[in-house]
Amino acid sequence: MQLITIPARRGKAARVRAGQRVRVVNTHGTQVVDTWAFGADDVTEWMAMDASRAWFTKLRPAVGDTFLTNRRRRILTLIEDTSGGVHDTLMACCDPQRYGLLGVEGHHDNCRDNLHAALAELDVTIPATPSPLNLFMNIPWTADGQLAWGEPISTPGSHVVLRAEMDLVIAFSACPQDILPINGRTGHTTEAHFALE
Amino acid sequence: MQLITIPARRGKAARVRAGQRVRVVNTHGTQVVDTWAFGADDVTEWMAMDASRAWFTKLRPAVGDTFLTNRRRRILTLIEDTSGGVHDTLMACCDPQRYGLLGVEGHHDNCRDNLHAALAELDVTIPATPSPLNLFMNIPWTADGQLAWGEPISTPGSHVVLRAEMDLVIAFSACPQDILPINGRTGHTTEAHFALE
Repeated sequence: MQLITIPARRGKAARVRAGQRVRVVNTHGTQVVDTWAFGADDVTEWMAMDASRAWFTKLRPAVGDTFLTNRRRRILTLIEDTSGGVHDTLMACCDPQRYGLLGVEGHHDNCRDNLHAALAELDVTIPATPSPLNLFMNIPWTADGQLAWGEPISTPGSHVVLRAEMDLVIAFSACPQDILPINGRTGHTTEAHFALE
Repeated sequence: MQLITIPARRGKAARVRAGQRVRVVNTHGTQVVDTWAFGADDVTEWMAMDASRAWFTKLRPAVGDTFLTNRRRRILTLIEDTSGGVHDTLMACCDPQRYGLLGVEGHHDNCRDNLHAALAELDVTIPATPSPLNLFMNIPWTADGQLAWGEPISTPGSHVVLRAEMDLVIAFSACPQDILPINGRTGHTTEAHFALE
């Protein structure tokens, strides 16, 4: 199994064939990995969190759940998860404007730019930025619907496995968020890894 | 106040200036109204549920909460709500493929087509279908994240008021969903109304 690095604060994309499995390893245990998938033949078809929630009728996926595209086709199934099962489908990926709202002046690394840069390495361009599947991200909710920015519960080396249900392009960003505690309270963002099986 | 009809199972759009208020009336009380907003000057900027949840950190908005665009700018604020405050930000709008998954053969009215048709009446075209704000839609959640298709709790004639924070195009669809109980268990879908104040 060849591990591919998602560099700290950067993105990485790869082409995946239907039936292949994508293992995503939270190498240091506290790193959120924003994840997107696009149809290989038509990248305007993408994994859609709103269509997926309507399909598995949960706020967060569990082993056995399948994500749908914006055309309601099966694209990825979560088939293995040793991370504790805490992932997020609710929050937009971070972007330059988000850091502006958080008080950052000037440049800040961000998942949106990482996504588009990772895709550009494969000569893929997309017309919008879909909502990500935020692997290992801990966004708890209360009975009255309040959300919070939690710390990851995943342990170092824990992983998920996603099975590709169509030929697709997968893209990851090792989230550079170091202001909110979603990558742990140290503000230390790290690399993560994935493998195609 | 001139009430404009959102016909049963159809869409309707309008141009709104910054500072204007948009009153949305649930005329018969059981009708979900899918709602979208787009920047008047650049319709690739739209109200984004994922960016909005990250801003007000709730699963559903309450009076005083402001929705953000996919560029994290303020676009609409919920300033009045007599409907009981149960709205949805989680579910994709219905589309032809969704009805296919629900076992419908052939045509079924749907919010996605209603959105694009309503915008076309204003000569507006958009490159994708954003996640809607589903006014009056009751999607309850449990502590472990299970979602369900609830019936509306709003009463006939109850309403919300949204204040425009920029010049925008607003679009509505009186949701034609008659298989799931989100418009009530009768399967009777109705018109709704709105007014610009």
